[in-house]
Amino acid sequence: MFSLPEINLNLIVMIYKKLAELNDKNMEPGYAAETDIEDLLKSLEKELTSDFERAVLLWSLDPNDRLALLANDAARKWNSSNRVLIEIACARSSHELFLVRQAYHVRYKKSLEEDVAAHTEGDFRKLLVALVSSHRYEGPEVDMSLAKSEAQILNEKIKGNIYKHEELIRILTTRSKAQLNATFNHYNNEFGTAINKDLKSDPKDDFLSALRAIIRCMNCPEKYFEKVIRLAINKMGTDEGALTRVITTRAEVDMKAIKDEYQRRNSVPLDSAIVKDTTGDYEDFLLALIGHESA
Amino acid sequence: MFSLPEINLNLIVMIYKKLAELNDKNMEPGYAAETDIEDLLKSLEKELTSDFERAVLLWSLDPNDRLALLANDAARKWNSSNRVLIEIACARSSHELFLVRQAYHVRYKKSLEEDVAAHTEGDFRKLLVALVSSHRYEGPEVDMSLAKSEAQILNEKIKGNIYKHEELIRILTTRSKAQLNATFNHYNNEFGTAINKDLKSDPKDDFLSALRAIIRCMNCPEKYFEKVIRLAINKMGTDEGALTRVITTRAEVDMKAIKDEYQRRNSVPLDSAIVKDTTGDYEDFLLALIGHESA
Repeated sequence: MFSLPEINLNLIVMIYKKLAELNDKNMEPGYAAETDIEDLLKSLEKELTSDFERAVLLWSLDPNDRLALLANDAARKWNSSNRVLIEIACARSSHELFLVRQAYHVRYKKSLEEDVAAHTEGDFRKLLVALVSSHRYEGPEVDMSLAKSEAQILNEKIKGNIYKHEELIRILTTRSKAQLNATFNHYNNEFGTAINKDLKSDPKDDFLSALRAIIRCMNCPEKYFEKVIRLAINKMGTDEGALTRVITTRAEVDMKAIKDEYQRRNSVPLDSAIVKDTTGDYEDFLLALIGHESA
Repeated sequence: MFSLPEINLNLIVMIYKKLAELNDKNMEPGYAAETDIEDLLKSLEKELTSDFERAVLLWSLDPNDRLALLANDAARKWNSSNRVLIEIACARSSHELFLVRQAYHVRYKKSLEEDVAAHTEGDFRKLLVALVSSHRYEGPEVDMSLAKSEAQILNEKIKGNIYKHEELIRILTTRSKAQLNATFNHYNNEFGTAINKDLKSDPKDDFLSALRAIIRCMNCPEKYFEKVIRLAINKMGTDEGALTRVITTRAEVDMKAIKDEYQRRNSVPLDSAIVKDTTGDYEDFLLALIGHESA
């Protein structure tokens, strides 16, 4: 069983081997002699193809850089079922999102919203660009009369099946989390159903599912991420991409809460589920990251 | 003639007098005894009604706080001919815009984009929310093939009179200034007219005028601000609001360049124009801010 310090050592050995290989290539005629760390890291990224290597690469990055890489990947290969941009924009504080946007500038010489806008379209573009560009107020102040009037707007749009309406997008993408929480509570009290229940009218609609993900990432990220892990593990042939993403991005954030939620929801500890579904170095690495206590 | 240190003294005397008045009010029965600086400043804001007082208030604020105040004012009383939000979003660096957004949180317990989105609508909302939320990349890197393809898109939309098209808004609100500059140059070379000329098809259309302001604020802020001052002074009954805003916000930024541009464009020095058009303390204060040398 790996522990984190050993992983570090393995990682370093592996990176050095890759660097040496790449350096050899660079020494061949026709290759530019200059190689800087950034180029090497980029090449490394392409070379790391196994689940284990991908997990190690993600984990080895600075947290903001890690999210910038995931966001870039999600923007470039965007499809309507991809939830990565929503996770980055909604399950972090405004300040943390801003740090990711700064890391994105450094890494890609572009802005995050620029790439998201260029690779998405229609209603998803309106929603996602606003989400990743927002710098929500983070204080506890709540305007109760605004919560009432906006709960009313949300209910009208949802009941009228015009949930792509710009007023609905405006409310979800700009209001503070405290304000939205008050709005959702009022919605529940006034209309007798939780807003996310009402947003389930068509379970196959990706836009509706994105709206639910936004609300869940803001309100209760550990429940949101528990579900992503649950679905990744329960899938025919584990979804390693999702599993790696959630575990590497939440390991030092709220993994304890996610593990508790997983146990509560599945009556099985997360580490047992991982042991059952993964193998080898990849398994050991995930277990080390979630803080598995070996027996 | 005032010099800045004297202005400071006058300002302090005036503020103390106002504070004393307000304190007397607070001591009257029925008033809450507690008064903190923030409340006093807010009351002060309401009490400062003359052009001189308004100019002094704006000038006395920290630059980010000053722009946050102007932005809040512009958002709350928004109308389609108001250019203040565009100036704040486009004639500053990305980092400076972010500092204004942070100051806005502190001052108004909301986000700038939240207030802009709540007080605007339709195409102007799409344009302005994206502008104030953007954190453009600031490096010099330019993608020439992108500049070509996006110049083509801009030309198609403008020629087709669909300048409210979301692609046009996307390009203007997310691309870096260096990238946009390359795009506009290519536009000029390829289509034989500067983009801002093509955006003049209907001189009375406020949306077109906003697009031109965006381009001018990004490309050449001193020319943009020279024109705002020129129109403010040439108007029947000087537009003191605009004059005060430009001089207090650009005094320590690019006033030298604006003055040079004013002289070049009007064959009259800016200070002579101000002396001719304003009077008293207000005149003296503006002259002090633009660095007038008394004879």
